[in-house]
Amino acid sequence: MAFPEDSVGLVRPQMLHFSEPLMLACGRSLSDYELVYETYGELNAARSNAVLICHALSGHHHAAGYHSGEDRKPGWWDSSIGPGKPIDTRKFFVVSLNNLGGCNGSTGPGSLNPATARPYGADFPVVTVEDWVHSQARLADALGIQQWAAVVGGSLGGMQALQWTISYPERVRHCLAIATAPKLSAQNIAFNEVARQAILSDPDFHGGHFQERGVIPKRGLMLARMVGHITYLSDDAMGEKFGRELKTDQLNYDFHSVEFQVEGYLRYQGEEFSGRFDANTYLLMTKALDYFDPAAAHGDDLARTLAAARADFCLMSFTTDWRFSPARSREIVDALIAAGKNVSYLEIDAPQGHDAFLMPIPRYLQGFRSYMNRIAL
Amino acid sequence: MAFPEDSVGLVRPQMLHFSEPLMLACGRSLSDYELVYETYGELNAARSNAVLICHALSGHHHAAGYHSGEDRKPGWWDSSIGPGKPIDTRKFFVVSLNNLGGCNGSTGPGSLNPATARPYGADFPVVTVEDWVHSQARLADALGIQQWAAVVGGSLGGMQALQWTISYPERVRHCLAIATAPKLSAQNIAFNEVARQAILSDPDFHGGHFQERGVIPKRGLMLARMVGHITYLSDDAMGEKFGRELKTDQLNYDFHSVEFQVEGYLRYQGEEFSGRFDANTYLLMTKALDYFDPAAAHGDDLARTLAAARADFCLMSFTTDWRFSPARSREIVDALIAAGKNVSYLEIDAPQGHDAFLMPIPRYLQGFRSYMNRIAL
Repeated sequence: MAFPEDSVGLVRPQMLHFSEPLMLACGRSLSDYELVYETYGELNAARSNAVLICHALSGHHHAAGYHSGEDRKPGWWDSSIGPGKPIDTRKFFVVSLNNLGGCNGSTGPGSLNPATARPYGADFPVVTVEDWVHSQARLADALGIQQWAAVVGGSLGGMQALQWTISYPERVRHCLAIATAPKLSAQNIAFNEVARQAILSDPDFHGGHFQERGVIPKRGLMLARMVGHITYLSDDAMGEKFGRELKTDQLNYDFHSVEFQVEGYLRYQGEEFSGRFDANTYLLMTKALDYFDPAAAHGDDLARTLAAARADFCLMSFTTDWRFSPARSREIVDALIAAGKNVSYLEIDAPQGHDAFLMPIPRYLQGFRSYMNRIAL
Repeated sequence: MAFPEDSVGLVRPQMLHFSEPLMLACGRSLSDYELVYETYGELNAARSNAVLICHALSGHHHAAGYHSGEDRKPGWWDSSIGPGKPIDTRKFFVVSLNNLGGCNGSTGPGSLNPATARPYGADFPVVTVEDWVHSQARLADALGIQQWAAVVGGSLGGMQALQWTISYPERVRHCLAIATAPKLSAQNIAFNEVARQAILSDPDFHGGHFQERGVIPKRGLMLARMVGHITYLSDDAMGEKFGRELKTDQLNYDFHSVEFQVEGYLRYQGEEFSGRFDANTYLLMTKALDYFDPAAAHGDDLARTLAAARADFCLMSFTTDWRFSPARSREIVDALIAAGKNVSYLEIDAPQGHDAFLMPIPRYLQGFRSYMNRIAL
């Protein structure tokens, strides 16, 4: 059980039950719910060193460290969280949760609906980035955290970080939004729609109540993940990784064989994902992405939307990210400058596409670390 | 029945039966087969004015004009073929066919397999761009055309135009390859693979023998088209066309409603396509794309591959095409220059993405027309 020295080591998920109903943007409410979360580092006496990690589409609370000595892989953002890492756990107390609607322990479609005593399935209410932020604020209350030193997230997680500065301006000192966008483009929505249709049209979806039938819409989930995965990697990264390398020496000239390595990779990614992720959660996450558009309530004026924010901002983007390109980050930077906020922006030259935000890219980690190190406690 | 003045007007598909077996790249052969085609304009006495049109993934023989006075829309490339248009039918005799493996009249998966007296279905052999070019050469023989004034195509059609100059260098005077690539990238293959998996995993696919069961893998075909369609449009074009416009005034917060117009558009495109296109043909077409890689037989040296070509070349690409970006056309241009060929290259500033090659974009049509007008007969 020897963990790397710069790892937070063994961690244990915790659970909190919330019994005050949560009103949701969709007009429905959750009468009560649970959130599963992990913490790394220690909350200081002034309670001024707490950092919230917001996860992206397929993420969860297990962001760093290991659940057991047998774990082959640490949490999903272990490259950025730990002693000496950008989010240095010697300095910060880090909180990472699984969002409502998730499939990793927090109340979601797989949970029992108290109204019916059956799993929610597709009856779980559609949750938005705003809803998540409200639920995260309650988690902060429960943990005795009045103000976050920083709220940090990439992709859909970055949207939550931004939303925090709008919904709870006085509760965030720094917002780090990485590889994100102020709202989806039509193309982003289109990819989400294909993923949803793949799931919805799978005969094993059963209107979202597959759980009761003991089946999983595996094919739909697999297709959804395959489409998603293509958008996470850059054309360059795929070319670098697979090129047109053949799986075998000879072409098979049929539909079933894996001819090119990229096909095998995608099928594997899809298969693996469909075995561990919930289809209803996938639908919910894509909807949260589609609906995120904080400026809509402010005449589409992003600067006006962010005017009340009191945080300082750090935006980061990656040159080959075509899901949320640097241009989308610059929209936010421009709005923040127009709103008179303090904003740092780092555009990282990286071939990995959108996935770069999860990777240990030296220039990225260095910029990330520099910003976090300067945060006053 | 008044057709536009610059239309070729009423046209009628014709059919030719070929009884000499065609050996295919996959090692199998077609003992006999039929090709459906259309012609526009008149073959001159010297037989020197014939132009071959090669279609793309979902194209067919009906490239220009109308089949009846009730047709709401003309052929798929009517903007480029007709009197006074880039491929001017007052000057040229135009031949446009449906490729082998197609679903619009030429022998394909829906045809009866003479060996079994049942529809081929998934037993139809995998056909390649090279196979198509050989079958097109036989069509040329049958029509008494020894040499094409030009072979013209966009996307997968452009690959056929290139292949003609390699397989039959003495039979092509000009090659116009538009919005194409010398081979697919890993990302291109990945998108094709998602489309194939959507079809293959549809329970109504029945291993490709759905026709005998009286069903259609509609869901799979719909998903395949939706994915494809996203790659045909640029992010800009989608944004321009749909932005984040809502379908109704209010959000529905469910999975089934069409919230954003782009969702409705994609679903419509998918539905419509799944009602008119054959799933096995779709698989075949994506495979033909994946396998196209003429330089593979020449040590990945494209200049060497094209060394024997005797045609002059015209390459055109569109700035926002991210399926086959201008960089992919420039690879071909560079190889042609290295091989000492005559090559014209036009990069057209157009927001429409890959689909631009089908559209009446003034600068594109003007460049296209200029090149065609200069062809000596």
